[in-house]
Amino acid sequence: MAEGFDVLIIGAGPAGLAAGMYAARANMKTLVLGFPSKSNMAKAKRVFNYLGFPEGIGGEEFQQASRRQAERYKAAVLEKEVVSVDRQEKGFRVKTSDENEYEAKAIVIACGKSYKRIGLQNEETFVGKGVHYCVICDGYFYKSKKVAVIGNGNYAAEEALELLSYTKNITIFSNDETVEISENLLKKLKENNIGFTEGKISAFEGDRFFRNLLMADGSKAQLDGVFIAVGVASASAFSNRLGIGMDTAGNVVVDRDGKTNVDGIFAAGDCTGGNPQALKSAGEGCNAALAAVKFVKGRSVYIDYKEE
Amino acid sequence: MAEGFDVLIIGAGPAGLAAGMYAARANMKTLVLGFPSKSNMAKAKRVFNYLGFPEGIGGEEFQQASRRQAERYKAAVLEKEVVSVDRQEKGFRVKTSDENEYEAKAIVIACGKSYKRIGLQNEETFVGKGVHYCVICDGYFYKSKKVAVIGNGNYAAEEALELLSYTKNITIFSNDETVEISENLLKKLKENNIGFTEGKISAFEGDRFFRNLLMADGSKAQLDGVFIAVGVASASAFSNRLGIGMDTAGNVVVDRDGKTNVDGIFAAGDCTGGNPQALKSAGEGCNAALAAVKFVKGRSVYIDYKEE
Repeated sequence: MAEGFDVLIIGAGPAGLAAGMYAARANMKTLVLGFPSKSNMAKAKRVFNYLGFPEGIGGEEFQQASRRQAERYKAAVLEKEVVSVDRQEKGFRVKTSDENEYEAKAIVIACGKSYKRIGLQNEETFVGKGVHYCVICDGYFYKSKKVAVIGNGNYAAEEALELLSYTKNITIFSNDETVEISENLLKKLKENNIGFTEGKISAFEGDRFFRNLLMADGSKAQLDGVFIAVGVASASAFSNRLGIGMDTAGNVVVDRDGKTNVDGIFAAGDCTGGNPQALKSAGEGCNAALAAVKFVKGRSVYIDYKEE
Repeated sequence: MAEGFDVLIIGAGPAGLAAGMYAARANMKTLVLGFPSKSNMAKAKRVFNYLGFPEGIGGEEFQQASRRQAERYKAAVLEKEVVSVDRQEKGFRVKTSDENEYEAKAIVIACGKSYKRIGLQNEETFVGKGVHYCVICDGYFYKSKKVAVIGNGNYAAEEALELLSYTKNITIFSNDETVEISENLLKKLKENNIGFTEGKISAFEGDRFFRNLLMADGSKAQLDGVFIAVGVASASAFSNRLGIGMDTAGNVVVDRDGKTNVDGIFAAGDCTGGNPQALKSAGEGCNAALAAVKFVKGRSVYIDYKEE
């Protein structure tokens, strides 16, 4: 049976860790799923614009301190990748790439910037015209067609498996990156005859619509469409599945408290757009967590004035 | 001649200091007017829910560090009380209680919680029915009437002087607090025959409308209306003068970027409502400052990714 939590947070950057700390301080059973040392904040050598550190603080050091702060109040921080979130009778069910499942009464999405462009030539030209970022949104247009998923991780594998609802002609292009997919998912890919193509991609080619990938070795891969799934699952992947409103830039739409249009789902940080600043993200994590706490407790006022 | 700034911030709590730091980092000539050691944050013995400090941090220590951080980027922090903000041909003119004036292209209001109730018996009962918090909003109803201002600081003196537009029968009730009004303002009060009444107030009395103050010594002061002006000038004082939209709870209405309905005026922190948390306020200070910077620079994109 899946372990149940009051508040489950997807993402362990400043927004996710702030949310984890605040939810845990409010005595919620709290789980943060994400990789504190992989957030953008952790990649910053030294950050000078996070208020309270006049001499600056190392990004990695900040992330470690923030993780300790969340854990101090008994938030669990598990370094796992979320592959899906689904509604169930009461609350939500969250699946991780290691095939674990968790239940939660409320979710805070804090998974960072929405879908990542891969940065190849002509990518922007063909967005929506053969180049896509979300199988659950656009897979429908590729019934029985020849498609590719570009990516090298569990998220790419999940997207490829999702495409099986529409077609059987699916290849994963790793674009010269090392494939890092769990054994379990690799087994499923094999069972469904989803193969891999290695080698670096140079460009998207076509005229009005995308037609083929140009590889660095000069060869061409003719395809009806490609789905880009680099990195980990983005907010858009969760959002489309759950009917969460997003703006045209792919950001989760939230109000000032971090509420989305879906009851029980909150969001904070870069996935909601706005200034990509750790301080802003952390502040939003606070708001989203307190809104989630109110939702779970079913009351309208919660103020964390607690001092020790 | 008044010294001119690009961005002037009213308030030196976490929102104001974050705004000061961000504006200064963007090479704006920046002034923060306020008292870092008088903010609510400074009064907290130790704060455990500001992300990045797993062992907590002293409120006063945080405020000092944050001030240093803003000053590091050449923001000026002056411990002065703002008494008024007025629009002028280009930008705004800000007056402080020591009779200095400053000009600014953009203003960030970060002066903390809006008007303070004084907490006397029946206060809520008579709000708007003889008990008021803003002369510029409600003074009009007291033409040639007998009114009192309750308060003991420069803000109370300014409110009393403002009442002269409507009536000459004005007394300041200090409510047993030490009067702390600048010499200059005291002189003006005297010139206009505005006197003081000492002694503790027990309650507001009346039936459908307020009628008199009941003093602790049992005496009664019959009045047509009272204006409560405890502490320093609040967001509502500035807002009403400038036409800034406020909600029914007296909070400045802002969008997610901290923009008010008035071009060039931004707001952040407790004066905008929401969770009264330092982390949330600091995040909003970041947003408001970056919006102010965009306003001053007249361009739409500014991202502070700078590392040193």
